[in-house]
Amino acid sequence: MHAPDLDVVLTTSYDDAVQKTKAALAAQGFGIISEIDMAGTLKAKIGVDFPAYRILGACNPKLAHRALTADPAVGLALPCNVVVYAEGEKVWVRAFDPRAMADGHASEDLRTVAEEVRTKLAAAIAELA
Amino acid sequence: MHAPDLDVVLTTSYDDAVQKTKAALAAQGFGIISEIDMAGTLKAKIGVDFPAYRILGACNPKLAHRALTADPAVGLALPCNVVVYAEGEKVWVRAFDPRAMADGHASEDLRTVAEEVRTKLAAAIAELA
Repeated sequence: MHAPDLDVVLTTSYDDAVQKTKAALAAQGFGIISEIDMAGTLKAKIGVDFPAYRILGACNPKLAHRALTADPAVGLALPCNVVVYAEGEKVWVRAFDPRAMADGHASEDLRTVAEEVRTKLAAAIAELA
Repeated sequence: MHAPDLDVVLTTSYDDAVQKTKAALAAQGFGIISEIDMAGTLKAKIGVDFPAYRILGACNPKLAHRALTADPAVGLALPCNVVVYAEGEKVWVRAFDPRAMADGHASEDLRTVAEEVRTKLAAAIAELA
């Protein structure tokens, strides 16, 4: 699940990191179609304190359409999660590796789409670095 | 990505399948913390018609907390997607296999949580069958 070119550590404020991440994803054609405040969810549901943790659901609609047309089950790995979380003074930004949606049984078309998505996510992460 | 015990085909109406899926997940302790109308998103963003397709983000807060404590990067695979999609007269309900969040490098604790989540998801799918 760990791919160096899909991870970056920022030293800005947490909120700033979230905003910069959204902007970098938008520049690569990704909209944010879901956003989960995981720390807030854990506090609300089970009363635990957890460091700031947000899951952004990034989706490039044209590529999502191609992927779903190639294999409807690919929605199990959509949207592409980009997590932004605090660890001490650092803020991690990590993107899901789309190769995980195109395993050994995947069609050539699905693998091609996964690589295209991966290239765009890596470009967004590089923009943040 | 295909696990027979995490897939089921229903012959009810699409809306009925969505409601039954939510109820079966709730009975296993999963809340729905995100819900994406993928067909609606594709129509709105790029104007294409796509069969009914919904991505439910299922989350058991206690198990999510244990998983995130074991490895913060696990949020890349959270919440657990359960997709409900139409294919002709059939409605597919498929759950993400949590084993994918605990690969070969995962800690023992993370693997244990993944198996617990998997057992509950499979029970929800069996309830629908």
